[in-house]
Amino acid sequence: MTTQTKLKAAVIGLGSMGLGMAQCLAKSGIEITGFDLNADALKALVQSGGRAASSAAEAADGCDVLVIVVVNGAQTRMILFGEGGAAAQMRCGGVIVSCATMSPENARSLAKDADALGLLYLDGPISGGAAKAATGDLTFMASGASEAFAKAKPVLDVIAGKVYQLGDAAGAGASFKMVNQLLAGVHIAAACEAMTFAAKLGLDLDKVYEVITASAGNSWMFENRVPHILEGDYRPRSAISIFTKDLGIINDMSRQEKFPAQMASCALQMFLATAAGGMEGDDDASVARMIAKVCGLELPKKS
Amino acid sequence: MTTQTKLKAAVIGLGSMGLGMAQCLAKSGIEITGFDLNADALKALVQSGGRAASSAAEAADGCDVLVIVVVNGAQTRMILFGEGGAAAQMRCGGVIVSCATMSPENARSLAKDADALGLLYLDGPISGGAAKAATGDLTFMASGASEAFAKAKPVLDVIAGKVYQLGDAAGAGASFKMVNQLLAGVHIAAACEAMTFAAKLGLDLDKVYEVITASAGNSWMFENRVPHILEGDYRPRSAISIFTKDLGIINDMSRQEKFPAQMASCALQMFLATAAGGMEGDDDASVARMIAKVCGLELPKKS
Repeated sequence: MTTQTKLKAAVIGLGSMGLGMAQCLAKSGIEITGFDLNADALKALVQSGGRAASSAAEAADGCDVLVIVVVNGAQTRMILFGEGGAAAQMRCGGVIVSCATMSPENARSLAKDADALGLLYLDGPISGGAAKAATGDLTFMASGASEAFAKAKPVLDVIAGKVYQLGDAAGAGASFKMVNQLLAGVHIAAACEAMTFAAKLGLDLDKVYEVITASAGNSWMFENRVPHILEGDYRPRSAISIFTKDLGIINDMSRQEKFPAQMASCALQMFLATAAGGMEGDDDASVARMIAKVCGLELPKKS
Repeated sequence: MTTQTKLKAAVIGLGSMGLGMAQCLAKSGIEITGFDLNADALKALVQSGGRAASSAAEAADGCDVLVIVVVNGAQTRMILFGEGGAAAQMRCGGVIVSCATMSPENARSLAKDADALGLLYLDGPISGGAAKAATGDLTFMASGASEAFAKAKPVLDVIAGKVYQLGDAAGAGASFKMVNQLLAGVHIAAACEAMTFAAKLGLDLDKVYEVITASAGNSWMFENRVPHILEGDYRPRSAISIFTKDLGIINDMSRQEKFPAQMASCALQMFLATAAGGMEGDDDASVARMIAKVCGLELPKKS
């Protein structure tokens, strides 16, 4: 298919997720240009065979598929549609694949602006973390017109292990992601509460991990995050600030929708307490350190 | 081993868990006597080859291993050590296997009273539900003297799939169970909040289940309980009252230990709201019905 071989792609935002995606695309032979403010990330992309642009607009110039993986909805909007925005530089009929976690309302509003420029829009938040980004095995919770999925397919085939098609309009992808983040945030807070409660009861924490991961109290987050507590290693695999942001979006949505999200609200306060304690940039398992500090408990130290 | 073949066992409390255990023991050829106030349960045990007693004390008469599976610590105490209590009827040096979920303090106090009568005590809360009880595949989170484990072994070999030995004194088993219940209760409340939030956002709930169970937001409870919501089937597999009880114990413990169990406390209030709405005896996934009622949301109806 000649159109596929000529496809031009761009990735804006070369953090741990975006860089992995861009490198996968470069290795697959797709013509890929990336942009980030971080020079090291640009260098890493070039070493993998991609091109580095000096601005988002330059990266987007004439591209068919623009993947944008930045912090939030506001940043996505500014880069795409702000002054000298990237969207206007894309080839007509191209598709924006928007990966940041944001409210469904934000996603719908961005899709509308893309449409006004004659562009397609895929509401495509991701899950899987840096490891899966690096191997092209991310999960996309995506919604949008079938043309948007079709246009993005050559790129998604490279960077995604699984693409859930969750509806034909922007908003559904973002909604599914927010439901996932509600659970993820609550489960991290619960894991940290349970482990510090176990410490307070004088239990062998390694044994608690062994027993719980084989019991009905287990969760994906318990299994994944508690080892950070057991190793006393709070380097950010995913930072506290991610969940003050995402549970904050749920808080906004719950107020707007008049939906009482009590568990999410309680978890948000625990992440905020942890950020207040100076651990905003640390691993999200630091909620356990916050509770331990409050209670004067000892948790395992890094060996 | 002649002592093993002569072993006499008793099970007090023939609910969905105790009956399964007693029937497994009867089928294995162990001499087993059961007691419950429910005549149907006694009949079922007799049909499986066990003996029915007309009181707890009669069931305990001369037995070596007494398994007690009643509602809580207070009921366990009353049956074992109350007026005409069962413990005093056991063969000297026998072991009590106490399965009810209770505070570590309660477990330690029962162990002390058993010791005063010359009996061994195994603090042995269980997990796995009625299905695993029926097949002799329960998990025991147990602590006690090695003599207690040894004495109970022929019985545990029949009724347990896995026995965690969590310490040499009563209290540790109960503590591990409470940590598990904290997580389990929080995860049920979170699953119900997430599913009703998804309903509020207008998402396809079957699809939410498919996506979340394959994502980082998953938990054992989400995977197990959400199908009840999707099928609109709130017959009690495990009732709301179990978690108003168990999260209530955590609430008591957290106040006594001065430990701020915020997530557990929030979940407890949601179970209490569900009980207040007349659903105390219904399946614990009814927390979703409580939220739906508050918000005027439609959830799937039983087909």
